Formats: sequence, C-alpha cells, structure tokens
Amino acid sequence: MTHELKTGGDRGYKRIATEEAFATREQIDGYLRLVREGKADRGVTSLWGFYAQSPSERARLVIERLLDLGERRIADMDTTGIDIAILSLTAPGVQAFEAEEAKAMVVRANDHLADAVARFPDRYVGMTSIAPQDPLWSMHEIVRGKELGFKGVMVNSHTHGEYLDAPRFDPILRACAEVDQLLYIHPQSPPDRMIGPMVEAGLDGAIFGFGVEVGLHLLRIITSGVFDRYPSLQIAVGHMGEALPFWLYRLDYMHRATVRSQRYEAIKPLKKTLFDYMRENVLITTSGMAWAPAIKFSQEVLGADRVLYAMDYPYEYEPDEVRTHDLLDISDEDKKKLMQTNAERVFKL
Amino acid sequence: MTHELKTGGDRGYKRIATEEAFATREQIDGYLRLVREGKADRGVTSLWGFYAQSPSERARLVIERLLDLGERRIADMDTTGIDIAILSLTAPGVQAFEAEEAKAMVVRANDHLADAVARFPDRYVGMTSIAPQDPLWSMHEIVRGKELGFKGVMVNSHTHGEYLDAPRFDPILRACAEVDQLLYIHPQSPPDRMIGPMVEAGLDGAIFGFGVEVGLHLLRIITSGVFDRYPSLQIAVGHMGEALPFWLYRLDYMHRATVRSQRYEAIKPLKKTLFDYMRENVLITTSGMAWAPAIKFSQEVLGADRVLYAMDYPYEYEPDEVRTHDLLDISDEDKKKLMQTNAERVFKL
Repeated sequence: MTHELKTGGDRGYKRIATEEAFATREQIDGYLRLVREGKADRGVTSLWGFYAQSPSERARLVIERLLDLGERRIADMDTTGIDIAILSLTAPGVQAFEAEEAKAMVVRANDHLADAVARFPDRYVGMTSIAPQDPLWSMHEIVRGKELGFKGVMVNSHTHGEYLDAPRFDPILRACAEVDQLLYIHPQSPPDRMIGPMVEAGLDGAIFGFGVEVGLHLLRIITSGVFDRYPSLQIAVGHMGEALPFWLYRLDYMHRATVRSQRYEAIKPLKKTLFDYMRENVLITTSGMAWAPAIKFSQEVLGADRVLYAMDYPYEYEPDEVRTHDLLDISDEDKKKLMQTNAERVFKL
Repeated sequence: MTHELKTGGDRGYKRIATEEAFATREQIDGYLRLVREGKADRGVTSLWGFYAQSPSERARLVIERLLDLGERRIADMDTTGIDIAILSLTAPGVQAFEAEEAKAMVVRANDHLADAVARFPDRYVGMTSIAPQDPLWSMHEIVRGKELGFKGVMVNSHTHGEYLDAPRFDPILRACAEVDQLLYIHPQSPPDRMIGPMVEAGLDGAIFGFGVEVGLHLLRIITSGVFDRYPSLQIAVGHMGEALPFWLYRLDYMHRATVRSQRYEAIKPLKKTLFDYMRENVLITTSGMAWAPAIKFSQEVLGADRVLYAMDYPYEYEPDEVRTHDLLDISDEDKKKLMQTNAERVFKL
C-alpha cells in the first residue's frame, strides 16, 4: 500500500517545512562574478563555483527550483504534502559580498520574497535576510522585515569569517530579541581559516563542513554569554542541531571543566548550564536528517517542543523523507508538535 | 545505598577501559620547549602551553596522573573498579616534533610502556605509538610494538596538518592490516589551517575542536577508500565516534549525492555505503561521553558489538561516570560487550 502525501492535515497535522531555500538570479550571478574575479573565499568558490556552473542534473535542478517562487514550487509542495514552506534566501545570502552591494541586493531579495508570500499567503511564510556586514543597518532591516510580514530572521553563519558573538554584531541580536522573532543560523561553507583540511578532501559542504560551521557558531554564541544578555532570544539551527544535541553531555562537562581551569579568557562562567540554553533558547530542525533514531534522540534530549520539521528544499527533495516523519514511532501529540504546532508557536503563525 | 565500584567482575563483567593516557617527562618537556621556542603550532601552544604550565588544580592533577604508570594509577583504577586499562601515549604523542626527534622519543616511550605492562601484566595493556612523520619507519615500529606485546596502534590525528588518507602514510595503514591490530585515532588540536575560529573562542580543545578534528580524519579515511584497500582494517575512535554515528544518515545521503554530482575529484564511488564502513570497520568508545542517551543511540545505530567502554583517564576521572555505564538500561549481554568482551575481541586480549 502506498503512503500518500497530501496537504490539508488528513493525518491529523499540517506539514510546515521550516528551512526552505530560494535564490534570486542577481544573487547567483553575483556569486559567479566573485568566483570569476577571484574575490570569493574558498567556500563560496567551492559551493557556487559548482552549483552555478555544473552541468550535472543535481546542480541544474537545484538552481531551477531555487529560482522559482511560483507554481512549480507549489506543485512540488503538493507532491510531498507540504502545507506551508518557511522560506529564506539560500546560503550564503548576501554575506559573501561587500557591504554596500550586499545591502542593496538583500533589500531586493526581501521585497521579492514579500511579493511571493503575498501571492501565496496560505502556503508561504518569509524570513528576513540581512547584511550582517552592517549591523546597525541590519537592525533596521529586521524591523522592516517584520512590517513586511516576515516571521523570523535568517543569517547564513559567518560573515567574512566573523561570528555573531563578536561585539560588533550585537545590534542584530538585540533587534531579534526586541522584535521577538527567532534567528535562524543556516550553514555556509567554513571560512578560509577553517576550511583547509575539509575542502581538499571534498568534505567542506553539507556532508561535514556545514555542520562544523554552524555547530561552532551556535556554541560560540552560547559560551560567550549571548543568552545571558538576551534571555528571551530564540535561535534555530537545522540538520538536527548540527550535532550539538549529541555532544551535549561532553559540551557541558568540558565547559564546566574549562571555566574552573581558567584556561581561556573567552570561557567565563555563565548563568545557566549548556543543557539549559539548549533546552530554553535553541530550536532545532530536521533538515537533511530525516532519520528516526536521530529525531527521537533529539526529542528525548531537548524535549519534543524544541524539534521542528524541515525539508531543506530544494537541496533535499525526497518524498520518502516526508514519509519517514509521518511514520515515526512517537506519540500523535509529539508528531503534531514536530510537524506543525512547534512551528506555529515559534514563528507565531 | 551506595553503588560500589570493585574490580574482579562482581557485576558479571570486568571493566576494560580502552582510551587511557600516559605521558613521559621527556615528552611534556619537549612540548614546552616547542612552545617557548615558538615552534609549536597553535593547537599545541593552546593545549600544552596550558597543561604543562598552569597552576590550576585540574592541570596539576592531569600531569601527575599522566606521568604515573605505577601504584598511583593502579590505586585510581581500583577506586573506580577498572580491571584493565589499555594505555597509550597522550596527545599529540610525538607528532608535534620533527621526525628524527620524534622517532627517538617514541622508541623510549614505547619501551617505558612495555616495562610498565611487564610490572602489571594483569592490569595494563599497551598500544604502540608511532612517528607518522616517517611512515616506513613507523611500519617497523608497529611490528616491534607487536613483539613487545602491544595490542593496537595509536595515532593522535593529524601530523603537521596531514591526515592518514594521504598516500604517503599508506605503509602505516598497511602495517596495521598486516599485523592485524586496530588503529586508534585519538584527538589532538586541529591544525593551524582549521583552528582559527575555534581557538579564538576557547573551543579548540575537548569541548569541540577535538571532535571536529577526529571526525574529519575518520571521514577522510572512509571517503578516500582506505577500507576498500584494506577491507579487514579496524579503526577505533573515542568520544562516541566523534559524532559520526549521529551524522550517519546525512553523511551517507550527501556522499551519494556528491558522487553522483561529480563535484570533487576526491569523492569517488566506494564499494560499500558509509553505513557499512561504520558498522564493519569502525569501533567507537565512550570516552568523555558517559551519557546513556548517546550510548544507547550508538549501540542502536552501529550495533552493540561496535561500542566499547573508555574512561579517558586522567582527563576524565569520575566514579559517577563508571556508575552511569553500570546502570545503563540495556541487556546484560550488551553491557558485558560494552564493558569487557568487545575489548577482548578487538584487542585480542
């Protein structure tokens, strides 16, 4: 018997996919220009030098689907039973560009997304993309994004090798706390000073480097005390928490040991434990990790309120992965949280 | 009621700890000399610049215990109910030194360990340390180590930024396969071209960087086809597989997608899936991850034959962590495998 994937909640829940990507033509052309002019870092060169130029079927389909915010995407959502897609500008957003170009480009991308959401208000939800190169400007764009109806803020991890725990990015964190919208940290390739041993082995991308990049980013945010500064701030990461849930015991143990040893200026006492921050300030999504053992582990460790469904369209477009979620051996209540109500709560839909 | 920790198998199994460290005075003095002369990489400077000089209680106790291969260590094993410790030269072994110094130093360290094993043959098992800087020489040292009675081979991850999948290290892999001893890959700090964003945030060590370093190393070995070349080779990694078991679904998915896309010269088709290699060629130990959810997850995903107990003495010396293993909610059979019989099988005790 086939397991049909239909929208409309026939299984007792709607499916809300929370890490779904789009691109603008201007953005992709911009990456290619950086690559050709030798101005892209090694990660962008590896990632977009491939996707924007490869004749492979995978690359071609990814690009076509990224650029579509119309009927084709809606048809793909219908095929896989996705009721609502929460959309964000694909990695690395405008973070690969210089500040002035980045700001102009991201305004156009946000406006483009707002138009698409207006055309399909029952199917699309938008997230605000920003240009962290200019934190104060980004603060205003976050406010504008909320006025456009967007429901969260997307950052594609590092910006020219810098992470959001650096003091100069504080306006971005403060803005997310003040507008009461979650900040989603999506992977991009690691920066030049981390990518070397990964890229030479072909492991800088989604297979490994992405997880290192965002896992480190989130851990830096936690250990630098961002959640002590902004106790209400909520940060989401995909790919099942980029393995931090699996590491959590060791992270917590070694954090306490490192604080006691006074080994680093950067590792200071925090108000709460790393378990607390992961359970109170962090949300994780299942993008690219449609695997029952890891989903159940993460629900057990972080709580069923902290794990949200994501497909990672169009990088991962697999009807069988939706079925994996439907067929999870968990309670109906926890499954509805996973697929629908956690997203409704944290994105305020 | 207290949960007593006694040696001798009163709980139906002996406790064999598989990732237990010692050091020689010459080795630690050598690290300090490198640090002071500015010849250490950033990782050794961070790690041993701290442990060898810090007045903190943690650093002092770690050093004292590392240097002891006598009654003090036996007493600590008695206190925590450890029947047998499988000992290896602590990270980064001699891999931080130039080749000639490294070879002379590691011969003395191996001889020193062999003496200790001869004094306590019922309590200590040794592993051969090598100087990967000279792969052919290391091949002979692996053979000599087996003649000394050692039961496995230890490598502390990268050697001056190079990984064992590089062709020049082939003699080391071939020797392990030919003497039929497992290769254990222990963490050290990531190399300079990967450590930047970790060390500036105090996250280069056991809390995060170590796991990235060895996870990447093992993944490079798998994806470069080492296990197709040496199908019988067994490689052990600590810290619950350095998170690769948690990532396994995504590793496998993205590996297949990357092969199809022909994105990298380095990512070629393999004879088996990544699930197969992880279940047939990889062993993981619980060092630093004495946490029931992660142990049970890993046993489920890799099989109960692939997960081995380790304490990570003296970096982690916690009686409560031994109790965590004793009290695991798993079958008596699987617990005996975890604590005793897997180690007896794979180290051929």
